[in-house]
Amino acid sequence: MKSTRELIHLETSEKEEIVNITREVMKVVSGSGIGEGLALVYPMHTSSAVYVSDSDTSLTEDLRDVLAALVPEEGRYRHNETDHKRNATSHLKAALCGHHVVLPVTEGRLDLGTYQTIYYAEFDGTRPKEVLVKIIGE
Amino acid sequence: MKSTRELIHLETSEKEEIVNITREVMKVVSGSGIGEGLALVYPMHTSSAVYVSDSDTSLTEDLRDVLAALVPEEGRYRHNETDHKRNATSHLKAALCGHHVVLPVTEGRLDLGTYQTIYYAEFDGTRPKEVLVKIIGE
Amino acid sequence: MKSTRELIHLETSEKEEIVNITREVMKVVSGSGIGEGLALVYPMHTSSAVYVSDSDTSLTEDLRDVLAALVPEEGRYRHNETDHKRNATSHLKAALCGHHVVLPVTEGRLDLGTYQTIYYAEFDGTRPKEVLVKIIGE
Repeated sequence: MKSTRELIHLETSEKEEIVNITREVMKVVSGSGIGEGLALVYPMHTSSAVYVSDSDTSLTEDLRDVLAALVPEEGRYRHNETDHKRNATSHLKAALCGHHVVLPVTEGRLDLGTYQTIYYAEFDGTRPKEVLVKIIGE
Repeated sequence: MKSTRELIHLETSEKEEIVNITREVMKVVSGSGIGEGLALVYPMHTSSAVYVSDSDTSLTEDLRDVLAALVPEEGRYRHNETDHKRNATSHLKAALCGHHVVLPVTEGRLDLGTYQTIYYAEFDGTRPKEVLVKIIGE
Repeated sequence: MKSTRELIHLETSEKEEIVNITREVMKVVSGSGIGEGLALVYPMHTSSAVYVSDSDTSLTEDLRDVLAALVPEEGRYRHNETDHKRNATSHLKAALCGHHVVLPVTEGRLDLGTYQTIYYAEFDGTRPKEVLVKIIGE
């Protein structure tokens, strides 16, 4: 069995921003020398999420709108009374997005569907963040 | 280490339909010869999702209702202005459902709880679709 | 390749309750003797979910509020007409929470971000429940 662990470093200029990280993840997979395996793409934070969706940037805006409707900024959140960062909605949106993904690796490559794109959804940005890619296989 | 990669082929007759694929996934696990491992059950699309829930078909209807309330068909979506398929809600529902699952394999079988059932939720159907089952273990 | 399978036993005193299980999962990882791998933390039920979030208990209350708004108790659910437990909302909340997580294991430890905490969200409690931890690696 082989394994690899790499960090992807990200820093967004906006508080909320959705970034395509497909190329960065592909690079870790190629560099790993692993032919068959599973790749965990895992944010080291709790106010961001990695998810797979269509390669259409308008859809990332739509997702932001849907999440803003489900977790309204003007709601009352207990977390905001205890944490000076007042970022309750950031954490709650990340939880609804599923946080991390596990992707198939086949013949040394990410085994994705035609339009599948890997997104990093930042909900509390403008600070350095890290996404861990951990691959196991052989 | 062993690995296996199989595709489950699906085609729904409705645009939106939730299908029990437990038997098909079990068959891939049995055929893999893997005793202990992890099975990724992964739609090759971005407008469908695989999830685990109770073996009650009335609940699949309830989930459809909940998702329809969270991502209303009559909403305004940027994706629908750029994509002729106008299937923004399909992608957004798939994202909220979590897209894929990872299941335990123990003693050559799916290691599921008593009532656990694996569902494929199609949100943009009537076309051929594929779910990849990638298992690694030994 | 090595693998391990352990059950964490839980029983909540409330119907709905969110419990920190980080320590229990860490113990399984230490005991496994696995240095590099992936840990699946998987509820054996369909009315509970495991998720990763911030180490702030006020946030678990906020998540309960958000889920209660998205899947209102007073809604009409088909499942409640067929199942005497009338626990449709329990299943639907678990589905929206993503059900299970896959966590990185590095140098024999859970490879979590600074504030990351593993939560078990029970939506139909007061009964004995089990969370399976399945780790593969070497």
